[in-house]
Formats: sequence, C-alpha cells, structure tokens
Amino acid sequence: MDEFALIRRHFASLTPASTRGVTLGIGDDAAILKPPPGHELLMTTDTLVAGRHFPLQTAAFDIGWKSLAVNLSDLAAMGAEPLWCLLALTLPTADEAWLSGFTAGLSQLAAQHRVALVGGDTTRGPLSITITAVGAAPVGAALRRSGARPGDHVCVTGTLGDAALALMRGGFIAGGAADARSPCAQRLIDDAELRARLDRPIPRLAAGLALRGLAHAALDLSDGLAGDLQHVLAASGVGAEIDAASLPMSAAFARQAPDADRLALQAAGGDDYELCVCLPESALAAATAACRDAGVTLTVIGRITAEPGLRWRAASGEAITMNLSGYQHFHD
Amino acid sequence: MDEFALIRRHFASLTPASTRGVTLGIGDDAAILKPPPGHELLMTTDTLVAGRHFPLQTAAFDIGWKSLAVNLSDLAAMGAEPLWCLLALTLPTADEAWLSGFTAGLSQLAAQHRVALVGGDTTRGPLSITITAVGAAPVGAALRRSGARPGDHVCVTGTLGDAALALMRGGFIAGGAADARSPCAQRLIDDAELRARLDRPIPRLAAGLALRGLAHAALDLSDGLAGDLQHVLAASGVGAEIDAASLPMSAAFARQAPDADRLALQAAGGDDYELCVCLPESALAAATAACRDAGVTLTVIGRITAEPGLRWRAASGEAITMNLSGYQHFHD
Repeated sequence: MDEFALIRRHFASLTPASTRGVTLGIGDDAAILKPPPGHELLMTTDTLVAGRHFPLQTAAFDIGWKSLAVNLSDLAAMGAEPLWCLLALTLPTADEAWLSGFTAGLSQLAAQHRVALVGGDTTRGPLSITITAVGAAPVGAALRRSGARPGDHVCVTGTLGDAALALMRGGFIAGGAADARSPCAQRLIDDAELRARLDRPIPRLAAGLALRGLAHAALDLSDGLAGDLQHVLAASGVGAEIDAASLPMSAAFARQAPDADRLALQAAGGDDYELCVCLPESALAAATAACRDAGVTLTVIGRITAEPGLRWRAASGEAITMNLSGYQHFHD
Repeated sequence: MDEFALIRRHFASLTPASTRGVTLGIGDDAAILKPPPGHELLMTTDTLVAGRHFPLQTAAFDIGWKSLAVNLSDLAAMGAEPLWCLLALTLPTADEAWLSGFTAGLSQLAAQHRVALVGGDTTRGPLSITITAVGAAPVGAALRRSGARPGDHVCVTGTLGDAALALMRGGFIAGGAADARSPCAQRLIDDAELRARLDRPIPRLAAGLALRGLAHAALDLSDGLAGDLQHVLAASGVGAEIDAASLPMSAAFARQAPDADRLALQAAGGDDYELCVCLPESALAAATAACRDAGVTLTVIGRITAEPGLRWRAASGEAITMNLSGYQHFHD
C-alpha cells in the first residue's frame, strides 16, 4: 500500500468529527479553513517521541489519544475552544493494525471535542507524532501566563503525580477487569487508574473555558509543577509560596505512592496535564464552582507573592528546599 | 542548557520576521493569532526525516531552509500568502552550532516571505523536523487540485529533475567558488547549482499568488510529476496527455544528466518544488506573463483530456509506457 492510500484509509474517518469552518479538509496541498469571526486563533504544536514521551509498549490507541490530548491541554490552558488539528506521523513500518488502533484513539478524543483533522503527513522513520492544534477564543479572552498578581491564589485542577507514579511503578495490567473479591483487586484497580492517567490524559478544556474571565494566569502542567510554575512567575514578574502538603492526590496515589517519593512525583514527575491557574480572591468561589460544573476539582495550593522566586513550605510552615525543576528534555 | 533556554536563544530571533496578526508569539501554551478579515486560512504540515528527505551530510542551514520551503511550497500551490509557522524539532543532541545554522536557514527564508515563527516544541530523538505553515487567501480564491477541465493546458513552473540529478550524482562541492579558468569550472558550477535545487528549493509563492483567478487547478511537485499529477487528475475526474520532450530542464541538467535517466529524473525524481497548474487557453498568455513577472518560467507540457488516465508521448508522437509513479514513502 502506498503512502497516499494509507493516509486516505486510516485518516479519512477522522475528518467528519467536525466540519466547523472546514471548507476543504485532507486531500489537497493545504486545508482551507474559515476562522470564526470576532475570534482570535490559538495554535500549538507538540511532538511525542517513542520511548521518551510514552513507554515503548504503549498501546497504539493510547498513543493516538495522548498525541492529541497533550495539544488540547495547551489549548485548554489558554481558555480556547478547539477547532482543528494537523497530524505529522513518522512510522517505522506501515503496520495496519497499529494504524487502526492509533486512529481509533485519536478519533475518539477528537470526536469528544469536535476537533476536525484537516491535514497530515505520513513519513517513514523512528516512531514520532507531531500534532498541531488550533482553537479559538473571543478577541482578548485567551488566558496567558503573564497575568498573575501578588495575592492571587495558585490553584490546580484534578490531582498531581498519578502519571509519574504509573511510570515509576512501570507495571501495566493488560486487559480484563479486576475481580473485586480477590485480595489484590484494589492493587489492580489502582494500577489501571494510574496507568490511564499516564496513557490517556484528559485535556481540561471545559475547565479552561470556564476559567476565562476569572483567572489572571494559566498554564498546563506537562513537565511538573515545580518547573512549569516558574514560567508563570517569570512571565508575570512575581514569585509564589506553595504549600507542599496541599498538592491534591488521587486515592490510588495516596494508597500506593511511597512516602519518600510523594513530593518529587507530585511536583516534578510531569505528565499531569492539569491546569495551574492564578485567581484573585474575588474569583475563587466562582472558579471552584465552574470547575466542579466542568467535572474537575480545583484546589488552592499556594499564593502569588511580590517577592520573586518559588518557595515551598511544609505543613508545619517550615521552608522546604527543592532541587526539582521539572522534566528537561536536554538535561537528562 | 535546558530545553527552554535552548528554544528561547535560538528561535526568539525568528519571531520578528513578521508580526502580522501575531497577538502573542512563542512563550505561552499557544500562540494568539488574528486571522485577516475576509480571508480563509490555508494550513499544511510536512515532516523532513534525516537520511530520507535530505542526505545525512546536509548542512544545518539547508535543513532549516528546506523544512520551511517544502511547507511554503504547499501554500504556493494553493495561491496563499504565508503568515505564520510552527516548528517541531526533534534532535539527538542540543548542538549549538547546528542549531545556529538551522535557525539561520529557517530565518532567512522566513524573512524573505515575512513568515512569523509563532510556536514550537523541541524534543530529543532522531533528527526530524515538522513544520506547520499557515497562509491566507481571500474567501473562495484558493487554488485547488479539483478544478482541471478537458482542454486545459498542463504547465509547470521552472525546471524539473535538478534536485533528483543532484541526489543521483551524490557529489557535493563543499564551500569556495569555482575558479572559472580551471578546466572543471563548469562542472563545479553545475554541481553547486543542482545541489542548491536539492537543498534550498525556492517556494513559488509569487507565482502561486499570480495564478489565482487564472488557473483551474494547481499542486506542488514534491514526489515527482508522474505521481503528483495523478492527484490532480483523480480530484478533477479527468485524464492528461503529457509530451515527455517538453519537460523543462535547466542548462546544468541538460549538460550533465545521462540520456538514459533524463525522463525518470524529470518525471519521477521528486524534490522539484515547482508548481503544476492547469490553465484554460484563454488564461495562458496572462499566466505566462504573470509567472515571468514573478521571476519564473511557465512551460506547457501537455493537455487535460476527458479520457481518464495519464498518457505520455515522445516527440515523435509515439506513446511511452512509464512505470514511474513518484516517490512512495512506504513503497521503497
């Protein structure tokens, strides 16, 4: 099968997830797209490299899902509504079963958010996926990293550290539901839950939309809170004090994470794909309610300060020294 | 140096090539962009993999140039004016000298066409570059593959086969101008000229713009005329008859290409990045003049027919059987 037949067969099915603004989708030299009037466009691109951004044994479905999810997470952090995506797929071989799984995963997430796949390129090489995602927000409404002000609450959606714990444990319970009566049922359920956080992150799009007009600043957590939050602080010219004990954790994380590793996993493990937002006191109640309506918790973890730098405090109030700065692609 | 410092240092310099419609460039979760009113957007993405889309010894400058050029060539074929691009760069190591060269090449072409780099991602892995390019055209004005009609002239810009000949010869004269008095001066000049066609293709953007309102159909030639033209024929529901002897060749190609390889190189060698357009008789003179003004020749190479299929004829009028279907990424 040649390149073109391959693209047609596996990706044509993705196009109808949405036709919003799509004058011409896949199949020409470029897609023709009509941006929504009165809106700005938000554009982002992210690459997943096999063995670096996902374990080599990750299921094709999950790779497809995650490739889109990490890009939609960036749009969520801007408070954008997603519209379109383009896929550049580099594959060692044109494996039909793998392509079907990959397409199904990408498709399912695209359909959930009415994202249309409007363009692509398929090349042979070491497995790597680059997606460019495009969203829209009314002019001036997009959330940025640069608006945090002293006194703002620092908040995160959902829970932190689950994906990092899954990666640390390295165990993946393949297929089959755990028998709730067996003694190790809870362990199996925990593993599957943690692994899902690693393999199928949920982009917080509804929360991002709901936080427009409320949050002063936002970004998504991909490399770990300790490193990512620094970008907000630098862009806003402020500092922050974070209460380490307040970092939200899932029940599975609480049961299984080794005590000695908890803070490192939650603050620097990465792959959380939660939103970190800075909110004035006056907007906190509304933002918490809006996130609840969007199906995700919002937890206060600290405060923005005029004094620069990121400071961590234990529950006792004591300062904690952290040598964690998030996942650095050229630093490992 | 960490990922972020690396991105900042090497790519920040690219942003000011243009600020058209750029509300917020590199440095947040997504770029914020304002599409020009009354226009549609054209979007395309293309990946270059080391050793597959360019020889491993290609200079970093040329890789940067070519990565953008192949994407701008797609926009040219749609008759779009380029606006923005996003870069996903996968690198085995954070080599500063390489990055400087790459950035300089990308930068130089971006500046020529006022393209702003508005987003990016840098990851570690086998060398591969994915660029997503965005352009604009007035609503309804974009050129497509689907409008060719029986009787249309099939035309190509520039010359065909130069890049393929450079690749076949494999020799690259590194640095230094040829001494015009030396006996092999012409050979050196030819090599450099052919190699430039391979390494620094010129996207035919001005020609694409000039052909809006004149051409019935257009596409860019990346995999070779024989394969690429099939896409126009399929999309338009027509056939074509091509005069093999009319394919335009450069003086360097005419001097150096072995007779036995000429047609294969010109029709299926690939990497031409010229435009192939279908023009009604009534528009031919205007299109030829418009291309001349845009700095490139336009050559008639055949006719669109109602009868489906692509047929090749020799200068004698005899049919030529071609087993060339262009470069297939999963077929080699």
